[in-house]
Amino acid sequence: MTPIEGLRAIVGAANVLVGGDLSGYEIDWRKRYRGQALAVVRPGTTAEVAAVVRLCNEHGLAIVTQGGNTGLVGASVPDASGTQMLLSLTRLNKIRAIDAANLTMTVEAGCVLQSVQEAAANAELLFPLSLAAEGSCTIGGNLATNAGGTQVLRFGNARELCLGVEVVTAAGDVWNGLTGLRKDNTGYDLRDLFVGSEGTLGIITAATLKLFPQPVAVTTALAAVPTLEAAVQLLQLARARLGAALTGFEVMGDYALGLVRKHFPQLPQPLPPAPWTVLLEQSDSEAEAHAQALFEALLETALERGLISDAAVASSLEQSNAMWHLRESIPLAQSVEGPNIKHDIALPVSAIPRFVAETDAALLRAFPGVRLVDFGHLGDGNLHYNVQAPADCDGARFLAEQEHAVNTLVYDALAPFGGSISAEHGIGALKRGELAQRKSPVALALMRSIKSALDPRGLLNPGRVL
Amino acid sequence: MTPIEGLRAIVGAANVLVGGDLSGYEIDWRKRYRGQALAVVRPGTTAEVAAVVRLCNEHGLAIVTQGGNTGLVGASVPDASGTQMLLSLTRLNKIRAIDAANLTMTVEAGCVLQSVQEAAANAELLFPLSLAAEGSCTIGGNLATNAGGTQVLRFGNARELCLGVEVVTAAGDVWNGLTGLRKDNTGYDLRDLFVGSEGTLGIITAATLKLFPQPVAVTTALAAVPTLEAAVQLLQLARARLGAALTGFEVMGDYALGLVRKHFPQLPQPLPPAPWTVLLEQSDSEAEAHAQALFEALLETALERGLISDAAVASSLEQSNAMWHLRESIPLAQSVEGPNIKHDIALPVSAIPRFVAETDAALLRAFPGVRLVDFGHLGDGNLHYNVQAPADCDGARFLAEQEHAVNTLVYDALAPFGGSISAEHGIGALKRGELAQRKSPVALALMRSIKSALDPRGLLNPGRVL
Repeated sequence: MTPIEGLRAIVGAANVLVGGDLSGYEIDWRKRYRGQALAVVRPGTTAEVAAVVRLCNEHGLAIVTQGGNTGLVGASVPDASGTQMLLSLTRLNKIRAIDAANLTMTVEAGCVLQSVQEAAANAELLFPLSLAAEGSCTIGGNLATNAGGTQVLRFGNARELCLGVEVVTAAGDVWNGLTGLRKDNTGYDLRDLFVGSEGTLGIITAATLKLFPQPVAVTTALAAVPTLEAAVQLLQLARARLGAALTGFEVMGDYALGLVRKHFPQLPQPLPPAPWTVLLEQSDSEAEAHAQALFEALLETALERGLISDAAVASSLEQSNAMWHLRESIPLAQSVEGPNIKHDIALPVSAIPRFVAETDAALLRAFPGVRLVDFGHLGDGNLHYNVQAPADCDGARFLAEQEHAVNTLVYDALAPFGGSISAEHGIGALKRGELAQRKSPVALALMRSIKSALDPRGLLNPGRVL
Repeated sequence: MTPIEGLRAIVGAANVLVGGDLSGYEIDWRKRYRGQALAVVRPGTTAEVAAVVRLCNEHGLAIVTQGGNTGLVGASVPDASGTQMLLSLTRLNKIRAIDAANLTMTVEAGCVLQSVQEAAANAELLFPLSLAAEGSCTIGGNLATNAGGTQVLRFGNARELCLGVEVVTAAGDVWNGLTGLRKDNTGYDLRDLFVGSEGTLGIITAATLKLFPQPVAVTTALAAVPTLEAAVQLLQLARARLGAALTGFEVMGDYALGLVRKHFPQLPQPLPPAPWTVLLEQSDSEAEAHAQALFEALLETALERGLISDAAVASSLEQSNAMWHLRESIPLAQSVEGPNIKHDIALPVSAIPRFVAETDAALLRAFPGVRLVDFGHLGDGNLHYNVQAPADCDGARFLAEQEHAVNTLVYDALAPFGGSISAEHGIGALKRGELAQRKSPVALALMRSIKSALDPRGLLNPGRVL
């Protein structure tokens, strides 16, 4: 029996794709990686996933696991060899259980993030993970990449939202680590080893997730801030005044918001241009009026202390959404403007003002005319510190010629601050070389020994991460 | 050069203890394990720890790492062979750095938890980990055992409070994984593998911890609750109304509080006896009056709904402390009453009422006259579900004869609910046999392969966990 015949016997012929247009599986979201799969296999149960893995083991076939294929680092598409099995988990899409009194839900890996959010909302609860791709990314992919997004300040990354996982191991065994326990000190933390391992240590097929009571009111404000130092002080003030009710703290540089103004002039911008604009979000468990009063008192204090020069508090859900829409339009405005080099870096919050000042200057010296699209999740120390090609040059050519040099300058600049070259997007194929060069040799050796222990034949997503 | 001479050359003769009274290092806190060390070695720096590990490697000597020696499962004392090196980290006790704007601090493993709390408080910040042994346990031990305590509901276990670790590996290399980053997706989650591994995978020598703004007011209330079902509903209501400001939710059974009344009659009990008494703690970022008003509104609703029959809100810090003191006096009252069998179990919160009803009944059937000391961190699903010997029998003999059978009944009863035999205390030597029997074979195989990968010679804390 050929491998393809074996796969058909496991999942049914209709779920083994070997011809036709497989580009949705083989090309990554950013269209930087175009691979070719031996086959696309779409199991419908965990048992089928395990059987597929055992079959691939018998034939020595590498497995690339894919969810919504929205990853940004090329971890979810096969290479060009035509020898890798593309394992799509989108048919594993059941909400298995919701336990309202325990504030947990158990879902299969292929559930689209938005459907997980909606299932929680239908039970009058909140699943807080939220990110731009939520309409198409899957929770399995979110966990495999330890996704971040806009609510990390309060709720943490995907890792912190996960209590337990079900995993198919490299040997094709099923580990049922699904648990709704908040405390369980019975051995090594296998869960967190699989979370964030980008499909290289095992295949997450289901997860038990944390839920939260829904807030009574979610309110947003924009504040004009003279400097990044002031933005960091505003963050400290907001954390002290609002406690855990502060659920968002985003920063947008003047040039970044200017791109939105230029390409999406129909979007209202409540504040005039300022060196930096901060978006604050508060999730209140009392009342809308309580949230607004807290925001107003906070912003008044910030104004008195010179931390902000102007502010606008949303007075309706529509206004809140419009403020977030501004923030989320930056990447789109960048694309319209032309080719750009994206970074997803993290720093200690305290180091961000100096890093940005020094690195902005260094970039302008090294690459005259580049335009700095600085924005991101300041509350988490995570910047999407993007570099737009100079206005007067061929952007595509600039990227082709200079991307590596720009990356090197930025990544070198992170090192003295203990920064990270990948805050929330992961390593995948894109940053594998950088990781090998920049991660501590001791950490790399530990990672390699774990990879060898859990996937001794190296069949799970080879060529990614390590 | 003998191993002892080698150790003296590394840490100085004064820090290698081979004679005299070493019982403080060799006997565990509960006095259930009495070992004998080849030597007690007390390095003062991470480099010295690494050199000690390399030397032990050369001589094939096992290493038992110890902090404050307050663990409850026998993981921190040597066995009786006289061949194990006892590595005490209490001299590694520097607060290395506090970064207020980043809300982080970096501390060495041997820092006593209380001194970590105090260093944070001196910077007007909060390090929320809090547990009974905080005056003598060390942060290294807290991390090695993923300690829990009273603030888990809001802040999580020690794991969730840790951003980065410095580890000496089994080979004697130093991995500097100290980072104050909130987001860092650059490879496998090594941090969480070492956290909770009880010294069996590597030696945590320092950590970067999360800090929080100090609350403006911390207020406590007691509520008399007719049933555990009502207590779970009160928890849901309190989480919805108070959001993340709900920082404590403890439950105490009537018999447990009765033991406190009997043995510590001087402690005021604000409420008359009730089937269950709940302690709620709220940490408010606005004002004392705000916290009290929220509490009163919450308790009024709970009273209307029949979830509680009576309540008392502390009107001063002294009253709050007195309420906590009641809760913390239960284990002491138990000791005065006589020998008892301790459990540290976790369940989904939603399963607790049924588990307790069924297991209480089963215990009384199997062991007539046993007294059930049910209390714990209900908000986390963690019960210290303790069993006091019958009043009319020789308690020590009951323990000697029945402890294993009582444990078996309780642990068997957990299984259908997906409960844990160790919520916050760990496995150590005490529960190693139970773990081998009760954990899934797939999980055990994964754990063993990780242990072999990171400690191939099996020299780190052998005989613990696995």
